[in-house]
Amino acid sequence: MLKIPKDQVAGHCAGDGKLGPLIDDSGLFYKPLQADGRGSNEVTFYASFSSNTKIPDHIRKFFPNFHGTQLVEASDGSGLKPHLVLQDLNFGRINPSVMDIKIGSRTWVPQAPEDYIQKCLEKDRETSSLSLGFRLSGLQIYGSGQSGVWKPDRKSVQSLSAGKVNLLLKKFVSSNSWDSKPDCSFALIIYGGSSGILSQLLELKAWFEDQTMYHFYSSSILMMFENELARDGKNPRAEIKIIDFAHVFDGEGVIDHNFLGGVCSLIKIISEILTTPEECTSIVPTENGCDLN
Amino acid sequence: MLKIPKDQVAGHCAGDGKLGPLIDDSGLFYKPLQADGRGSNEVTFYASFSSNTKIPDHIRKFFPNFHGTQLVEASDGSGLKPHLVLQDLNFGRINPSVMDIKIGSRTWVPQAPEDYIQKCLEKDRETSSLSLGFRLSGLQIYGSGQSGVWKPDRKSVQSLSAGKVNLLLKKFVSSNSWDSKPDCSFALIIYGGSSGILSQLLELKAWFEDQTMYHFYSSSILMMFENELARDGKNPRAEIKIIDFAHVFDGEGVIDHNFLGGVCSLIKIISEILTTPEECTSIVPTENGCDLN
Repeated sequence: MLKIPKDQVAGHCAGDGKLGPLIDDSGLFYKPLQADGRGSNEVTFYASFSSNTKIPDHIRKFFPNFHGTQLVEASDGSGLKPHLVLQDLNFGRINPSVMDIKIGSRTWVPQAPEDYIQKCLEKDRETSSLSLGFRLSGLQIYGSGQSGVWKPDRKSVQSLSAGKVNLLLKKFVSSNSWDSKPDCSFALIIYGGSSGILSQLLELKAWFEDQTMYHFYSSSILMMFENELARDGKNPRAEIKIIDFAHVFDGEGVIDHNFLGGVCSLIKIISEILTTPEECTSIVPTENGCDLN
Repeated sequence: MLKIPKDQVAGHCAGDGKLGPLIDDSGLFYKPLQADGRGSNEVTFYASFSSNTKIPDHIRKFFPNFHGTQLVEASDGSGLKPHLVLQDLNFGRINPSVMDIKIGSRTWVPQAPEDYIQKCLEKDRETSSLSLGFRLSGLQIYGSGQSGVWKPDRKSVQSLSAGKVNLLLKKFVSSNSWDSKPDCSFALIIYGGSSGILSQLLELKAWFEDQTMYHFYSSSILMMFENELARDGKNPRAEIKIIDFAHVFDGEGVIDHNFLGGVCSLIKIISEILTTPEECTSIVPTENGCDLN
């Protein structure tokens, strides 16, 4: 029996009779093929990537496992529809904190139709994509100081300024209340260390400095960990994955400088959170709180 | 007595009664302040950079020395005009081969006027800026196999495809005729080695991964060396410099992911020329020759 994933933070969502991804109990994620060739482009990417022998294992682990496509009862009740069958990235995780970061200052590919380019360009300019080289697409943070989850409205998350994005990257690894100054008390075990998120981003960066096979437009890096494990001093299973490949194209022998630039910018901000933890609790009052507007 | 620099390969040129930079016999370069606030913005950058104690010496060496501004007889005969007084980067060089590479897939700053943004965006899309993360702005190559210099028309250089740019980066370090397949015989001594251009670009890259003080839009990396010294087995004085700061703005705590991405792309292409020299002489016939169209 397929069900609606509760830890999805961005993209189209199933529920209320809408079309969206579903999961099963065995760790699979069923993503309906998008229209306008985006779905078929994503299938093409997964098929190419999963059979590409030039992808090193330490890079492959950053991508969801691919299990082909399958006709599945769509979540909007429209009957059997083709779905990508992928790894459910949050399978087995209890209350994961998740952040979806759309990478690149440019989300459009040069050969896209003009009206699509203009729409993307406008959004890149309105959001932090242009200034930061990435923007937040969605997030959920499980707190330790209180019960429940903080899952802010996606529209307000997407249009956050560079400063607010920086603040949320601190809140993401904080143990105190969401409307307090972030204490960054989990920064070291989530972002730091030899298997932490910064290390993983640096591995990814090294690959992007070299690989010229794929250009990833409008793809996201998903960051995940389990707050409860962090609080208990256990391995919080901090992990990054790259997702959303509807706009991946042939690199034609050139590196993906757009994606790489965004990754480097994210690395710099996370490095600063790690090296200047005292900054975490000395943020100006106007930048605090859950208010994202 | 000021004179017209003969080794300038891009930008406005003096001569034929036009306004352009001049040089003297002591190693100084006089650049007329551009209109529309660009000139004053460039002065502001030079003043800030030259007094900025956070710039390490190994990075400062990549920028022209700044000697203030001075009223100088303009090259177009319009009388005394304010000029930036800078280091003449080709002073003391005999017949230098020079390449001007405009860095960044985006040459416009978000806060620029809308018509300026549209003009830049169009040019970024028409040239290799979008695909490669940089475009050639101009070049001159002194050959060893024959006398004279090859200085192709700038307009045709600017609109070169990614493939042609790649070819010119090979021709730049070749000793054979400009209309032959490039032999890349100088690649090792110009691009390679501990003081070669690749090493210098890697130093610059490391700084751009970290610095959040300045964002460089529409600036260029100039690559220079002396062909005759290369041919004689002497140190060819291969050097890079960053120039053109009319569109430099405060980084506001974020790395310059746009410039960094372009530098990484250039590094990758030059690395490939060094690691696969056999490719140099096996280029498909249509990509050969001086024909840039």
